[in-house]
Amino acid sequence: MGSNSFGTLFRMTSWGESHGSSIGCVIDGCPAGVELSGEDIQRALNARLPGRNSLVSARKEKDQVEILSGVFEGITTGCPIALLINNEDQDSSKYEPIKELLRPGHANFTYLQKYGIFDFRGGGRASARETACRVAAGAVAEKLLDTVGVKVVSYLKACGSYSSIEQAQMGDAVVRPLLFCLTNSDEEEMQAEIEKAKDAGDSVGGVVECVAFNVPVGLGDPIFEKVEAKLASAMMSLPAAKAFEIGDGIVAAQLLGSQHNDLFCSQDGKISCSTNHAGGVLGGITNGMPLIVRTHFKPASSIQKEQATVDMTGKTQKLVYPEGSRHDPCVAIRAVPVCKAMSLLVLADCYLMNLHASVKVKELFLK
Amino acid sequence: MGSNSFGTLFRMTSWGESHGSSIGCVIDGCPAGVELSGEDIQRALNARLPGRNSLVSARKEKDQVEILSGVFEGITTGCPIALLINNEDQDSSKYEPIKELLRPGHANFTYLQKYGIFDFRGGGRASARETACRVAAGAVAEKLLDTVGVKVVSYLKACGSYSSIEQAQMGDAVVRPLLFCLTNSDEEEMQAEIEKAKDAGDSVGGVVECVAFNVPVGLGDPIFEKVEAKLASAMMSLPAAKAFEIGDGIVAAQLLGSQHNDLFCSQDGKISCSTNHAGGVLGGITNGMPLIVRTHFKPASSIQKEQATVDMTGKTQKLVYPEGSRHDPCVAIRAVPVCKAMSLLVLADCYLMNLHASVKVKELFLK
Amino acid sequence: MGSNSFGTLFRMTSWGESHGSSIGCVIDGCPAGVELSGEDIQRALNARLPGRNSLVSARKEKDQVEILSGVFEGITTGCPIALLINNEDQDSSKYEPIKELLRPGHANFTYLQKYGIFDFRGGGRASARETACRVAAGAVAEKLLDTVGVKVVSYLKACGSYSSIEQAQMGDAVVRPLLFCLTNSDEEEMQAEIEKAKDAGDSVGGVVECVAFNVPVGLGDPIFEKVEAKLASAMMSLPAAKAFEIGDGIVAAQLLGSQHNDLFCSQDGKISCSTNHAGGVLGGITNGMPLIVRTHFKPASSIQKEQATVDMTGKTQKLVYPEGSRHDPCVAIRAVPVCKAMSLLVLADCYLMNLHASVKVKELFLK
Amino acid sequence: MGSNSFGTLFRMTSWGESHGSSIGCVIDGCPAGVELSGEDIQRALNARLPGRNSLVSARKEKDQVEILSGVFEGITTGCPIALLINNEDQDSSKYEPIKELLRPGHANFTYLQKYGIFDFRGGGRASARETACRVAAGAVAEKLLDTVGVKVVSYLKACGSYSSIEQAQMGDAVVRPLLFCLTNSDEEEMQAEIEKAKDAGDSVGGVVECVAFNVPVGLGDPIFEKVEAKLASAMMSLPAAKAFEIGDGIVAAQLLGSQHNDLFCSQDGKISCSTNHAGGVLGGITNGMPLIVRTHFKPASSIQKEQATVDMTGKTQKLVYPEGSRHDPCVAIRAVPVCKAMSLLVLADCYLMNLHASVKVKELFLK
Repeated sequence: MGSNSFGTLFRMTSWGESHGSSIGCVIDGCPAGVELSGEDIQRALNARLPGRNSLVSARKEKDQVEILSGVFEGITTGCPIALLINNEDQDSSKYEPIKELLRPGHANFTYLQKYGIFDFRGGGRASARETACRVAAGAVAEKLLDTVGVKVVSYLKACGSYSSIEQAQMGDAVVRPLLFCLTNSDEEEMQAEIEKAKDAGDSVGGVVECVAFNVPVGLGDPIFEKVEAKLASAMMSLPAAKAFEIGDGIVAAQLLGSQHNDLFCSQDGKISCSTNHAGGVLGGITNGMPLIVRTHFKPASSIQKEQATVDMTGKTQKLVYPEGSRHDPCVAIRAVPVCKAMSLLVLADCYLMNLHASVKVKELFLK
Repeated sequence: MGSNSFGTLFRMTSWGESHGSSIGCVIDGCPAGVELSGEDIQRALNARLPGRNSLVSARKEKDQVEILSGVFEGITTGCPIALLINNEDQDSSKYEPIKELLRPGHANFTYLQKYGIFDFRGGGRASARETACRVAAGAVAEKLLDTVGVKVVSYLKACGSYSSIEQAQMGDAVVRPLLFCLTNSDEEEMQAEIEKAKDAGDSVGGVVECVAFNVPVGLGDPIFEKVEAKLASAMMSLPAAKAFEIGDGIVAAQLLGSQHNDLFCSQDGKISCSTNHAGGVLGGITNGMPLIVRTHFKPASSIQKEQATVDMTGKTQKLVYPEGSRHDPCVAIRAVPVCKAMSLLVLADCYLMNLHASVKVKELFLK
Repeated sequence: MGSNSFGTLFRMTSWGESHGSSIGCVIDGCPAGVELSGEDIQRALNARLPGRNSLVSARKEKDQVEILSGVFEGITTGCPIALLINNEDQDSSKYEPIKELLRPGHANFTYLQKYGIFDFRGGGRASARETACRVAAGAVAEKLLDTVGVKVVSYLKACGSYSSIEQAQMGDAVVRPLLFCLTNSDEEEMQAEIEKAKDAGDSVGGVVECVAFNVPVGLGDPIFEKVEAKLASAMMSLPAAKAFEIGDGIVAAQLLGSQHNDLFCSQDGKISCSTNHAGGVLGGITNGMPLIVRTHFKPASSIQKEQATVDMTGKTQKLVYPEGSRHDPCVAIRAVPVCKAMSLLVLADCYLMNLHASVKVKELFLK
Repeated sequence: MGSNSFGTLFRMTSWGESHGSSIGCVIDGCPAGVELSGEDIQRALNARLPGRNSLVSARKEKDQVEILSGVFEGITTGCPIALLINNEDQDSSKYEPIKELLRPGHANFTYLQKYGIFDFRGGGRASARETACRVAAGAVAEKLLDTVGVKVVSYLKACGSYSSIEQAQMGDAVVRPLLFCLTNSDEEEMQAEIEKAKDAGDSVGGVVECVAFNVPVGLGDPIFEKVEAKLASAMMSLPAAKAFEIGDGIVAAQLLGSQHNDLFCSQDGKISCSTNHAGGVLGGITNGMPLIVRTHFKPASSIQKEQATVDMTGKTQKLVYPEGSRHDPCVAIRAVPVCKAMSLLVLADCYLMNLHASVKVKELFLK
């Protein structure tokens, strides 16, 4: 089974290398009848663009998306939706001088060992460039989930030594385009962290938090397709992801049961929880509370500082990235829209999976 | 696609409820030619047994496993391996008086919403009892991986407010049966944490660390089947899991690139890394360093303290578990062998997947 | 991915060898809320029993099925349904003297080449015994499909040189237990064919036809999951199956378009076809007409006549099955309930898959 | 799970409509290290081209394929291979006048019922145009299989009332480009059948036979992934396919066991069969004999003759395809290269699946 597909019923298959002619994806399983335009997808892609400001990679891409199939007169047809994005600024000359060197924190060593061949230009397939396809597919999932009211918000929660105490509330629009922070003061603090690292020729890690609101109760399938397992897999498949949390996450392991348990309450006949330590899940199934996850990203592996390494033959070498190499000082920034996309893809899949949990759906479906 | 199967090529399908007559699993995809006996599996199950001591559930189960198929004269045949474990101590009388109550931290609310029906006895399918099947299947994976030298060690890393600074080294045998700690002093500290919680009618969280040694370079499939994504999915599918880390994990997000990058070095023609912040992966593919992951578990949801809740109709109620109810004060203890099993299942699957990464295997395979 | 599972959403995983202690299966993905009892399954299994009369294998099995999980108080819970059938008459002594011989038409040669090991007793996994699990799982599918009115009828259509001209009509009960024929005269003719072969120490082939009535329009998913592709895969996975047809089948290839096209007509506002050459499908999707498929089975490979063969070392040998060996003179007879089961499994899966073809289901599902 | 993907390990995902801007596919799971160029794929596509002669559709397409990813310096990298084919002659004006009519034998009725929307232009997704992607992907599979010597030959076996008695032998090159027949006399007879139908404004059915030589022993996975089940699914997923046979196929059901059994023999230490009634499989696993399958295609549904039908509202109408509509008088002709492609896709997948049948491969794989 190919490893470039994600999802069971709402399934996207991604392809393309950092410095090939184009990248793209195919979304198979999107129900018919969803309104979808190129602009819907473009809007999401624009948030992830490189070259937007000095704190992200200088690579210039417009990421203009083209819908090649699966949409007829503005409506999805149930047929696979193919999306294409041309690579425009795929200058790989910077990689030529270092193509024999193993790059610390990068995948050229492991790809070479596994496949016996590696497209060294910009990391080939092992590049953050592939995340553009996730964002494009996520935008399609968002249109599907819009029909049932689900909203996902994503933002930079922490960076280097600074961590925000804010959490998104329903209706929050995260419009700060520089770093996707929830507040201005968060942005200032994190900007300082990033600039300090960048000025030192270094990079810095960060944390992205995603909150999904209006999630129907019942999404997620025990045992192995628990919603938190699918979200963990989704987030940990992102380049540079090193940890995943749901709800209280790592703090939960330090609590007592009486502190962590969310008590049930009832208002106007609707049962919910009075707190949300669990982060929106019970037994792997959504409980109607906001679904809250965090993903921790390591600092970008490409730094300006000289690093000791070896070449493919094992000979000791020094790695210095050529002048003008284009790297993100903090990959977590551009991971913000990508984490949102992954949440959407998981929820769209869980939503479709849930339609056959019980025969009750049948009673509604068939007149 | 059923949600009770795990793995792609080395695939286990699990079934059974806490208080049914039996539980079991089917392992499909184990290659022919692996030596396998019931004792191999029993040994692993015995480590997970409830009723072993006062710090785990008092339920008495022998977890005697029976191999029903797939093994002929002590050797796997390539046919599905069915394993059966009888439930012997499935006393569900304690659940009768509380069967109408929503239990904080438990899944009866979400199961009822999703399926319209719930086997309330001992949590039904949403019970840690199902993890016995994971351990049994993991023992089969271990036999397969034994043939290539992979060793997985698992231990209790933290509990409540105490966290150990130890990390397993190759050859460590984790024989402390009480809590599966690496050292006696760790055990004493964690035992104190658990007993304190238990005495207060409460429960406490904990962290399990798994280290895999001798992992071949090249396991894991980009993009969505990265080894860390599969491990995250595996661990986060465990009851009570709330966070997952690989390598430096959450700490990585607070580091600079120059601190986190593992530099390549070479000794006797063999390339490796001089440090292991990454935890054994690069680009989703194992790099030959020990594979290190941690899973964080919440405190058990069942506590002796009285809790406010509602019943199925939404009416306010008090939940007090009946005298003699059998619960784990710290689910992380018994999660130790389960996490090991999940690591083994992931690695067995990745190992088989890797056999067709390159046509080079063909040159060896066909005479 | 294991090869012992069938179906995507309604998914059964089968295990067990002809002469092991038991066989069984796990059904994962059956929606909650379906009424299901052991008798529902037993009834289906009884039709497939060996030892019923002189025209099928003399092996004595009661095929008593046990539901081990997934049903609570007579209702499916959405959890995996495990079924167990004990083998009672697994006398393998007859296989000892011939265990080194390659048996013409049998799989011991290919299993040995593929796996390097073979459970020679009764064919091991490569035995019609495994079809009992298909019948058991099919009975569960039938209960699900009952809720929407689908009915499947299956019968022996041809045997040796005799072919019936009958086709089942809605409401036909195929109660002739000897050979599952539609009419008495069909039964007499086919019985003569089988007895002639049996008396000559030989075996004979046959054809099974399945008709599904009340199939909802819209089942089947283009491109690769067309309903006829899934049915073909289902039927051709049966032991001894050599050909598959839908609708006019092989005759269709000899017709003109003007002869084969089913014209659309309309009655009381309901659109249907005036003929059914297509056999109930258009473009891989059911069109509401009866779904008609035929499966052609080779004569059983085990015959009483002496056959030339070689042993595992390649040395020329004579194969004579030991006195008292138990074989079916016409495997197509007992394939009748099995083909029905496979149809049911396919339709149950297609039915669930179809619930998310369009967002229209959502409008009904969510209040 | 999407329905537009085929294969488990060697997996292709297809997209695109008859009259969209382009069609294409993604091949995920092709091992690294296979030599692959655009010409390899183009050669296969050229055989399937419409507009080649008066006996196939007059649509003019060059089917120029572009490799967008997965190949670096002429070698596959293990990353997904995306292929793109532009549609150049997608004139849909002919479909405008009939877009409200249900077309006999076509899928617009069922698509509309299932999805609530249908891209009427040229059949949208339900068009033989999608088979170009299968041919392209098949060409990649062919390159992989080349490395182990497998050869697949495909040809028109029967057409209308004429059926050839020839069967391909190893080394046969089927170069007759008009109809892909094995001999000149076959071609003459079949040409007469097709022209007779065409002249009458009608269409005619046909049969395609595929033979695979040098297939390694051991391909195919019991129980549900038997090689004949996968081939049946592959072929029956083709537009217009109505029946599938392997080996003696439907004739097998009329034979006695003593006639059908292939006896084992041995020559120079190599065990094989002295006949090949089974068509190259035993127990679902290839036995080293040529793998022989036949697929039966109905006559094309689009004919020039007037046909009675109804429109979407159920009102009685007459369907006459507009002057200049482009249809195949015999779809079986262009199905010849498509059937070959499907065989190749199945065999490539089975070949990769077989690499982990036994731990013996490990002993070879790891030094």
